Amino acid sequence: MQLGWSWGAGTLQPLGSVPSRSLHLAAMMPDLPFLPFCTLLGSLGLGCVAFVGAWCQHWRGGFAWDGSARMFNWHPVLMVTGMVVLYGAAALVYRLPPAWRGPKLPWKMLHSTLALTAFILAVLGLVAVFNFHNASGTPNMYSLHSWLGLATILLFSCQWVAGFSAFLLPYAPTWLRALYKPIHIFFGSTILMLSMASCVSGINEKLFFSLKNGTASVPYKLLPPEAVFANILGLLIILFVVLVLCALANPSWKRPEADSLDTHQPLLGAEH
Amino acid sequence: MQLGWSWGAGTLQPLGSVPSRSLHLAAMMPDLPFLPFCTLLGSLGLGCVAFVGAWCQHWRGGFAWDGSARMFNWHPVLMVTGMVVLYGAAALVYRLPPAWRGPKLPWKMLHSTLALTAFILAVLGLVAVFNFHNASGTPNMYSLHSWLGLATILLFSCQWVAGFSAFLLPYAPTWLRALYKPIHIFFGSTILMLSMASCVSGINEKLFFSLKNGTASVPYKLLPPEAVFANILGLLIILFVVLVLCALANPSWKRPEADSLDTHQPLLGAEH
Repeated sequence: MQLGWSWGAGTLQPLGSVPSRSLHLAAMMPDLPFLPFCTLLGSLGLGCVAFVGAWCQHWRGGFAWDGSARMFNWHPVLMVTGMVVLYGAAALVYRLPPAWRGPKLPWKMLHSTLALTAFILAVLGLVAVFNFHNASGTPNMYSLHSWLGLATILLFSCQWVAGFSAFLLPYAPTWLRALYKPIHIFFGSTILMLSMASCVSGINEKLFFSLKNGTASVPYKLLPPEAVFANILGLLIILFVVLVLCALANPSWKRPEADSLDTHQPLLGAEH
Repeated sequence: MQLGWSWGAGTLQPLGSVPSRSLHLAAMMPDLPFLPFCTLLGSLGLGCVAFVGAWCQHWRGGFAWDGSARMFNWHPVLMVTGMVVLYGAAALVYRLPPAWRGPKLPWKMLHSTLALTAFILAVLGLVAVFNFHNASGTPNMYSLHSWLGLATILLFSCQWVAGFSAFLLPYAPTWLRALYKPIHIFFGSTILMLSMASCVSGINEKLFFSLKNGTASVPYKLLPPEAVFANILGLLIILFVVLVLCALANPSWKRPEADSLDTHQPLLGAEH
């Protein structure tokens, strides 16, 4: 069984009763170039980080590491930067045209390093919220957002350890790698999707907390500028994730397997 | 360009330097049978509907169609039933083994009817929440949940109209259908993912509203039984959506294109 999220079967399918002229027309459609798309994605990712940083700096009092609400502010910034933007970048490493040729090992190293950095930021993001809760006497882990967020990070840690063990360490047999690879790819997209759902529910929750009737000068339901800004941040995150999934799924951007003679080569093996 | 979410490239790939024995081992792995998986999915879908119904009936005061909070209760029930469970069922129609053989038209009809039913339930779900807001003087469309939810339903309506026009009406040329099909498939999975994110943020939001400090006997942060129950509902919805995406992406459950001579056949054309 081969598993993995993709845009269809990779190449133009037999189309049954479609006349050959139609097939020809379909085959003639120009493929979208990856690098401009990647530039758009990079700008969108930077936009997400800038938006979440500006939200916390401008409306939520800025940053500190002291158990206060200013420590909590690291939580959205670290989660969006780690679990969405860096994670998305890690997922797209093999779509870069230079990664298509030559040894795969440097790209594996880049993929796992970006993913590890995303994981470290996510753990720091958890520390920020747990410390804030503990300092303010708020219970941890009660909301659906927190259940989903923690499950996503636990799944991500399993994914990282399994990916590292299977594809970088020399112990896993090649048949096990071949079986695990599509599972790794599927969970890669799934974890990104769960990160997006966690971010959306987290932004929603934070705005309800921060812009309560009675405590805020303009409550959430009257859509003050902060609410519009943070809602737009949520939409940018959703757009970024959908475009990353789209890039991952587009068969014309996939690394051709025929070139990857070292696909199953361990970290300590000889490079081509 | 072929687009669509799937579990990889459909068949066992050339694995480069993998020895033929490993290839043989990988090829020998038994494929998961679809029908038991489908039964599990069906039970999980019914479980989601039962959970959301029980939550609204047991803890939120039951149902009415009178602009009260009991009218609001139709909102989560109709959204989960329509945009998650029926939508998921519609997406899986072509994975049913009987749909692999013979004319495709009845399965197209079933697919579009299930999707239309899901859409009607979603519109009724919107009516329920808008009527409740209007009757209670609450503004509409301010939260990120509402922005995402409405965007998801608008995207779904475009998807339904475009799918109906391209695949059921006889007007679209075959080359356009061939180009649009993978886009339809990709947005199918994407809309399901967005529905899931909408449900998670909606459940989270509703619990914060309903179990406020000061108004609830046990607030959300102290995890009363209602909070645990509704959080579990959220997890069930996430599990259901991930399993549907998994079923959609598994290449061994895809309808073989070679059999679908009427893939591009319009509603009014002759059947095979």
